[in-house]
Amino acid sequence: MSDPVRACLIIIGNEILSGRTHDKNLPCLAEELNTLGVRLAETRVIPDIEDTIIATVNECRAKFDYVFTTGGIGPTHDDITSECVAKAFGVAIELNADAHDLLKSHYENPEDLNEARLRMARIPVGAELIENPISKAPGFRMENVYVMAGVPMIMQAMFQGIKHQLIGGKPMVSRSVGGYIPEGSIAKVLGEIQGDFPQTDIGSYPFLREGKLGTTLVVRGEKPDDVNQASDRIRLAIIDGGKDVIEDTGAV
Amino acid sequence: MSDPVRACLIIIGNEILSGRTHDKNLPCLAEELNTLGVRLAETRVIPDIEDTIIATVNECRAKFDYVFTTGGIGPTHDDITSECVAKAFGVAIELNADAHDLLKSHYENPEDLNEARLRMARIPVGAELIENPISKAPGFRMENVYVMAGVPMIMQAMFQGIKHQLIGGKPMVSRSVGGYIPEGSIAKVLGEIQGDFPQTDIGSYPFLREGKLGTTLVVRGEKPDDVNQASDRIRLAIIDGGKDVIEDTGAV
Repeated sequence: MSDPVRACLIIIGNEILSGRTHDKNLPCLAEELNTLGVRLAETRVIPDIEDTIIATVNECRAKFDYVFTTGGIGPTHDDITSECVAKAFGVAIELNADAHDLLKSHYENPEDLNEARLRMARIPVGAELIENPISKAPGFRMENVYVMAGVPMIMQAMFQGIKHQLIGGKPMVSRSVGGYIPEGSIAKVLGEIQGDFPQTDIGSYPFLREGKLGTTLVVRGEKPDDVNQASDRIRLAIIDGGKDVIEDTGAV
Repeated sequence: MSDPVRACLIIIGNEILSGRTHDKNLPCLAEELNTLGVRLAETRVIPDIEDTIIATVNECRAKFDYVFTTGGIGPTHDDITSECVAKAFGVAIELNADAHDLLKSHYENPEDLNEARLRMARIPVGAELIENPISKAPGFRMENVYVMAGVPMIMQAMFQGIKHQLIGGKPMVSRSVGGYIPEGSIAKVLGEIQGDFPQTDIGSYPFLREGKLGTTLVVRGEKPDDVNQASDRIRLAIIDGGKDVIEDTGAV
């Protein structure tokens, strides 16, 4: 495990890259991982193309502690994630008896469990199933790669079933402080504060509200003391700039 | 140029990876590129880390016809995209006279154009500026890499100023057909239709509406005839499945 523990999300699906579907899994997974002390260090959005999926999975599983994939594990021809992950690991993919049982229990009428739906029970050899409490068709884990559904509700339910397996570091805590001060007016002192608190990560996010320019400063870090001291310095900088602090999520 | 012309979007910013900010640039850019016949072939979301930005820009500019970056060109310490792109290309970064003039025209009071804001006029040597009609601080192009702001409104305005430069192929057209038929019931015939129309890309997207499971099938391709013929076959498949077609965006 690296320190901090680093994860990568691979979002698989032409529908995201065409702009048709807006991904909702990234922010959701990011926040879940934050609370576990795992840093979402990179995300890739890739198409339903075999070579691309295999290469991306292999690159990312070597580079990151954990890899999560979303999308491409349904019953249709464009659902090729499971086959590709099997190829990435150089193992066969076959009908998994446990996954088969799960699907049999879901479809009351045996005729409904047709060839297409049975594809959802094809799992790379050696993988561990990830439970899907919503529509039964499971995800799976191969080593450090967690293969999950793309439908946000199902992805989230699957994640709840595996998060106890993840070994994280200290969770990140964060505090946001903001005021109607333009970014450029506070940038210099902000750089100094960042320099004084190198263990924190200070983000600066401008906004326009009621016609007025302002900035929210977000301090993130593993040590609450650092986060609070840096945030207090930012409060002072806003006040020194002649503006009120209009936003402060409070000491962590 | 490859055929189809392929683009990559690099979204730069810790705030996206932490889940704080939900990216809006991907779907917007994807749709703009679609109309130009440029395929958004991959997206990466990466943190504000110098080595990562440099490596990602260099990998992607070699691999794709066009690279677009968003984020990290503001006045604060965490805005390091411009410096990193200069390093990726092995060129110096310096105060650009045209960019400086733009900022001077924007800040009426010369004192407001402080050291931090002047950073926004630092541009890699040899780059061409991208106009920012909203807040003046420009983006820039280095060879096939377009560096744009992260704020969606500004990114979109910048893109309008450069899209005439992009050389695309045939625009993709698409048609959506849907009904209250579960994915798994139509999957087999869908695979056959995809096989008969290999130049199209048929996506299958399940939905749950008013408590009923359904599927929208999206056919995309460069040739309207192919898209329409495949869509008509999908209509028939839904009807053969005993369901009504409840959605059809119509012939393209």
